[in-house]
Amino acid sequence: MTTTAKLLLHCPDRPGILAEVTDFITVNKGNIIYLDQYVDRVENIFFMRIEWELASFLVPQEKIEDYFETLYAQKYGMNFRLYFSDHKPRMAIFVSKMSHCLFDLLARYTAGEWNVEIPLIISNHPDMQHVAERFGISYHIFPITRENKAEQEQKELELLAQHRVNFIVLARYMQVVSQQMIDAYPNRIINIHHSFLPAFVGAKPYHAAFERGVKIIGATSHYVTTELDAGPIIEQDVVRITHKDSVQDLVNKGKDLEKIVLSRAVQKHIERKVLAYKNKTVIFN
Amino acid sequence: MTTTAKLLLHCPDRPGILAEVTDFITVNKGNIIYLDQYVDRVENIFFMRIEWELASFLVPQEKIEDYFETLYAQKYGMNFRLYFSDHKPRMAIFVSKMSHCLFDLLARYTAGEWNVEIPLIISNHPDMQHVAERFGISYHIFPITRENKAEQEQKELELLAQHRVNFIVLARYMQVVSQQMIDAYPNRIINIHHSFLPAFVGAKPYHAAFERGVKIIGATSHYVTTELDAGPIIEQDVVRITHKDSVQDLVNKGKDLEKIVLSRAVQKHIERKVLAYKNKTVIFN
Amino acid sequence: MTTTAKLLLHCPDRPGILAEVTDFITVNKGNIIYLDQYVDRVENIFFMRIEWELASFLVPQEKIEDYFETLYAQKYGMNFRLYFSDHKPRMAIFVSKMSHCLFDLLARYTAGEWNVEIPLIISNHPDMQHVAERFGISYHIFPITRENKAEQEQKELELLAQHRVNFIVLARYMQVVSQQMIDAYPNRIINIHHSFLPAFVGAKPYHAAFERGVKIIGATSHYVTTELDAGPIIEQDVVRITHKDSVQDLVNKGKDLEKIVLSRAVQKHIERKVLAYKNKTVIFN
Amino acid sequence: MTTTAKLLLHCPDRPGILAEVTDFITVNKGNIIYLDQYVDRVENIFFMRIEWELASFLVPQEKIEDYFETLYAQKYGMNFRLYFSDHKPRMAIFVSKMSHCLFDLLARYTAGEWNVEIPLIISNHPDMQHVAERFGISYHIFPITRENKAEQEQKELELLAQHRVNFIVLARYMQVVSQQMIDAYPNRIINIHHSFLPAFVGAKPYHAAFERGVKIIGATSHYVTTELDAGPIIEQDVVRITHKDSVQDLVNKGKDLEKIVLSRAVQKHIERKVLAYKNKTVIFN
Repeated sequence: MTTTAKLLLHCPDRPGILAEVTDFITVNKGNIIYLDQYVDRVENIFFMRIEWELASFLVPQEKIEDYFETLYAQKYGMNFRLYFSDHKPRMAIFVSKMSHCLFDLLARYTAGEWNVEIPLIISNHPDMQHVAERFGISYHIFPITRENKAEQEQKELELLAQHRVNFIVLARYMQVVSQQMIDAYPNRIINIHHSFLPAFVGAKPYHAAFERGVKIIGATSHYVTTELDAGPIIEQDVVRITHKDSVQDLVNKGKDLEKIVLSRAVQKHIERKVLAYKNKTVIFN
Repeated sequence: MTTTAKLLLHCPDRPGILAEVTDFITVNKGNIIYLDQYVDRVENIFFMRIEWELASFLVPQEKIEDYFETLYAQKYGMNFRLYFSDHKPRMAIFVSKMSHCLFDLLARYTAGEWNVEIPLIISNHPDMQHVAERFGISYHIFPITRENKAEQEQKELELLAQHRVNFIVLARYMQVVSQQMIDAYPNRIINIHHSFLPAFVGAKPYHAAFERGVKIIGATSHYVTTELDAGPIIEQDVVRITHKDSVQDLVNKGKDLEKIVLSRAVQKHIERKVLAYKNKTVIFN
Repeated sequence: MTTTAKLLLHCPDRPGILAEVTDFITVNKGNIIYLDQYVDRVENIFFMRIEWELASFLVPQEKIEDYFETLYAQKYGMNFRLYFSDHKPRMAIFVSKMSHCLFDLLARYTAGEWNVEIPLIISNHPDMQHVAERFGISYHIFPITRENKAEQEQKELELLAQHRVNFIVLARYMQVVSQQMIDAYPNRIINIHHSFLPAFVGAKPYHAAFERGVKIIGATSHYVTTELDAGPIIEQDVVRITHKDSVQDLVNKGKDLEKIVLSRAVQKHIERKVLAYKNKTVIFN
Repeated sequence: MTTTAKLLLHCPDRPGILAEVTDFITVNKGNIIYLDQYVDRVENIFFMRIEWELASFLVPQEKIEDYFETLYAQKYGMNFRLYFSDHKPRMAIFVSKMSHCLFDLLARYTAGEWNVEIPLIISNHPDMQHVAERFGISYHIFPITRENKAEQEQKELELLAQHRVNFIVLARYMQVVSQQMIDAYPNRIINIHHSFLPAFVGAKPYHAAFERGVKIIGATSHYVTTELDAGPIIEQDVVRITHKDSVQDLVNKGKDLEKIVLSRAVQKHIERKVLAYKNKTVIFN
């Protein structure tokens, strides 16, 4: 497997961007293996994801970012990010007391499905320590109270920095993440909410769904922003229920949704297929 | 086809109800062709739908209701309804300016899919008159303003009574139905709302869905109650969208959802498979 | 609404195609409003759909095809098609005895959802004449027997030519279309098969699905080729069933699937979003 | 939690069965907490699942089967099975080289989601030993060749008997199970096939789906019978794909389907909600 570069960008739409960028790569002997672009015609923004093999690319890997910045980003007012396939992003998992999402993430990790490192798991409870141990991953407990929350999060941030964590997955972490954490990981904290957002924001969505008598329930994975359950949505899915389903049945059916929806979102994030813009996402596929 | 009786009932759960009711039918030589029952163990309510052939039934058709009332309903505190397959319910359609739900209902009606009569269509606009004419159904226009609303609805009610209408289908009728109409047709006005309720209650749900950046949109059919878009849900369904979909794309994709979801709900209502209880529905299948 | 050009093409993948084609359009002052491309890395084929506004385009509309052929198609060995939004494709519907797909197509047509003309309906039975009349479309009956089939199809072909028909939709047309018809309309005859192909090819798929005890049924829309039910698939969808569903229930549930799946496929065809290649389709969205 | 009895039965349909069975339970002071029945009107077979609390039941637990046999089963020609909630069924997992289904089963087991014991895992390869070890379950390797197959299966059967295994789950076990194993566990071997059966029976279904150009792929869980991939279907589900998906993408998307579909089937089996009849299943819910 040759190393590839993945470039994600957005900028005001103008004629010629696509042609110039692809030209830059092909002229320099990069072999494009993926290209997807999209123009938001309401906002007039151009979005692009392009991936190419570096084997014969004439620009040295460590200089690509600089070249691109100088040649195109300034000219077009681009906001861009460049990733390389030989760099493994480092992911922390936050969890509370439920194991289903955690198991699903670690099973994929162990099976080598994802190009990611998981150096640590953080929790506000000891319950999931046994899961971490089964997979040989360090487990750090930070009990949270109203009084110690800021202080504990500060310690968590230090631990995350120490492990050079790039992004965080909240695998049914039952604590609201505060501003300082979000600022440290903008559009890099992925949450799973156990409802079809924006329906049933907040606590106990399955109880609320049961009370309302809906015929379908859902789960939503999104980037965490300071407004609760209101960040850019990455992935959603639903499952049909009936009047025969108790709240507990909803919880059980929902678990399968939650883990699949969260893992799909994490995978897209790892593959650099998500581009958050304002409060929405562009998902390349 | 022999005539059948359909009995829907609910009452506080007690041992023996099911046995007694089925015994009543079989002892009197009724051939049960459908039975479904369900116990809500939170509310402790027993729900049942039973259908049997009357060909050899010993109790005369016109006396069944009276017998059942005397023998069982009083004893168990039952709320029940009895329907016969040789009676065609009469349905009115209310429509405004969009044709997709109207066409779908009338196509099924014309194809003889449903055991129903549609004696008239009511609208606040003339736009759909041509559709009514294609299907040979009378079309009555009642323009609605804030000032004339109560008066116009009164005239509509008289027209509905005159046509002996049993239930109403709002096929994208863009007017809030008022209390007097709801009281005249309790749990007998079926609406289609163009969102996955309870998300995006009220006007312009596709715009709201677009703004929020959801990855799935839905449609919801429900009985109309005095609280807007909050009545008992009969049926819901969803379709996946992407960031590439404009508001107009959502509208277009939504149309297919709306007509299918509405028609499914209407069909269940006609087949007497819906039992509304408090603000939820039991759907027999 | 300004006129747009839609260009669909495929050719062996080489560096620079995308850049050259977009450059051709932007240099000549065409405003690109849609672009999607895809590379089949197994077959090494480049596929592209691009749409641009002609208002300020420097190449006259009637010369675009010629220019493109000369400048790019020959160079890259492209297979391409060019369409203009000011040209309405003409579509014929073939139907037998079932109305659900026919009604759905005509309802959309009447509502102006599609940029299409429907000059005629052809059938092997008189049953659907009343539907054609409701929508004011001419209805031509060609009864088919084993003996007269070739002859009748010949007459149909003449009628289609006379009405300058561009493509054909088989809306549950219960006759196998023969070679001569397929040759006259290659990848331009759209069929709906009432199963989730390749399961249950051929006659009576709902009976076969019932016998097999599947838990989900489907419908498939595809281009007709000489091998029965084996042409390039455009669209599929499914619906869940249970052991309680009789064959008749499958037929009824299937009808909703069939009409939606067929209409989605027809819409994609009309919008020039389908590109058939070998026995598969590329669907632009 | 009080102990409950679960009774599943089927017999030729006759009037009065339901009334008699429910009467037997209520007269003997059993509290019915679940009842579902269904009549196959083509085959004229009555199916029933009933569950009741034993706390005040007058018939001793160990005599219920005998009483029921004498009083009803002989009279109605019933085929019935009686299960008690205080008995944990014992399940063996067979696996080859893929971990996704295995992890999903063991995660649920470890989380206590299921009333089941998993005393052992059997494999034809050593690859999944590490997974078994993480969960502390014994792992037995029986390499299979054409020559030793009968012999190895005989040893497996002895091991299963020794561990008092009640049913077997093939979690992507890549060996055809032979007649002797099926006879020992009739309708008690649950397989997951990675296609939407009956499409793509046999080996490499994702390759076949890719070749055919389907727009949706599926997974099917079924009881194993002697005809390959043709046993009674318990559960199916599907996921949408596009022309952009490579075979490897289908494999990856399929993995999520497979594990969810298999686990749903296993759960229904454990909860005694599946009743196989001829080559189909009745699924109580």
